[in-house]
Amino acid sequence: MRDIALSPAPSESTSETETPRLNRRQAAKVRTRQKVLDAARQLFAERGYEPATIRDIAKGAGMSTGAVFANFQDKAELFEAVLSTDMVKLAETMKAAAASEGSMRGRLLAALAAGYHASLEQLPLVQAVIARSWFQPVAAEMRTRAAIKPILSVVTDTLQAGLGEGELRQDADVRLLSELIYDAFLSNYRRAAYDGWTTAQLSERMGKQVDVILAGALSRQ
Amino acid sequence: MRDIALSPAPSESTSETETPRLNRRQAAKVRTRQKVLDAARQLFAERGYEPATIRDIAKGAGMSTGAVFANFQDKAELFEAVLSTDMVKLAETMKAAAASEGSMRGRLLAALAAGYHASLEQLPLVQAVIARSWFQPVAAEMRTRAAIKPILSVVTDTLQAGLGEGELRQDADVRLLSELIYDAFLSNYRRAAYDGWTTAQLSERMGKQVDVILAGALSRQ
Repeated sequence: MRDIALSPAPSESTSETETPRLNRRQAAKVRTRQKVLDAARQLFAERGYEPATIRDIAKGAGMSTGAVFANFQDKAELFEAVLSTDMVKLAETMKAAAASEGSMRGRLLAALAAGYHASLEQLPLVQAVIARSWFQPVAAEMRTRAAIKPILSVVTDTLQAGLGEGELRQDADVRLLSELIYDAFLSNYRRAAYDGWTTAQLSERMGKQVDVILAGALSRQ
Repeated sequence: MRDIALSPAPSESTSETETPRLNRRQAAKVRTRQKVLDAARQLFAERGYEPATIRDIAKGAGMSTGAVFANFQDKAELFEAVLSTDMVKLAETMKAAAASEGSMRGRLLAALAAGYHASLEQLPLVQAVIARSWFQPVAAEMRTRAAIKPILSVVTDTLQAGLGEGELRQDADVRLLSELIYDAFLSNYRRAAYDGWTTAQLSERMGKQVDVILAGALSRQ
């Protein structure tokens, strides 16, 4: 899918030909939806999933609960909408960090540290996402997997580049390595949630974990 | 703590000197408590945490909700009591499997496979434990950590033995390795929950993960 914001068609002066023009009523609906999403994100990020009620989300958005339900079927749908937007942003942040100069290890750790840095201020939201990922209908799990795919891809792409550059052995199982690194990345949030770890502490631990996971896959110099 | 059932004092005909004698009323209370725990375990294992109501647990135990609340403050306390009993049993099962003959890798994988085998039939309970571990008060998290410690110890002890036997390098970080293996072990339950993986499939994946995690820590033969 082409990202219009990042790569505008060079020969056209505006993107109006690609973005459907909204009438006033449609534009108002989009704004309302966005207000609800913003209020929901803030409450989920402060409290997590269960304690964030539709009533309080509506209050935060300055509208009635009826207006919220006109846009979203239930809290679960609202949560998923927040999640998928946030994952896209988080993946972009991590991807930008991974695009830095340096070794594969350095780029990978820069991406993971950027991920912690960007998400730690809304830790209850992260916890809610992980907790819910263990108890949801299969269809919701498949949507969650699609939502986190861009994050996992940052790890996979960085390792794949390392393989191309000869830092990883040609027989390295990039997918398995990526999944182990991602599991460790997620698991570390527990230290932030219960032990008050900072981005720096999480990143230091991540460095040790990455070294263990990649140890057998590095090319012998 | 000495396990009376497994190691009775050899010179005494009974263990009465160590087990406090219960009067009839106390014995009835112990039996009631056990009935509630059994009914709760069954419902948690079938449905997970949220959908298992105190009302249904009481019904399963053949008593009133009042009788349940006379023994447990709330569902969370009941859940923790089930959890800690189950973790002790699971750790014993895994420990027995790890005590088999063979290489460190073989013993470790035998223990982890035994863990999957023993827990997969109550998968919703496992999912509920993991989900709750991401959203609970700090004090509850500390109790959960204490409850899972015997499981983690099976992994740590097996690696430590491998280090003593020269299979692992002397500078191997046994704790870090154990935690990575444990994280991967837990994460795999997601495949069982949403993709219908069997013990055999989980164990095969675990074997690959263990090989990656240990690759840099094995002694060069």
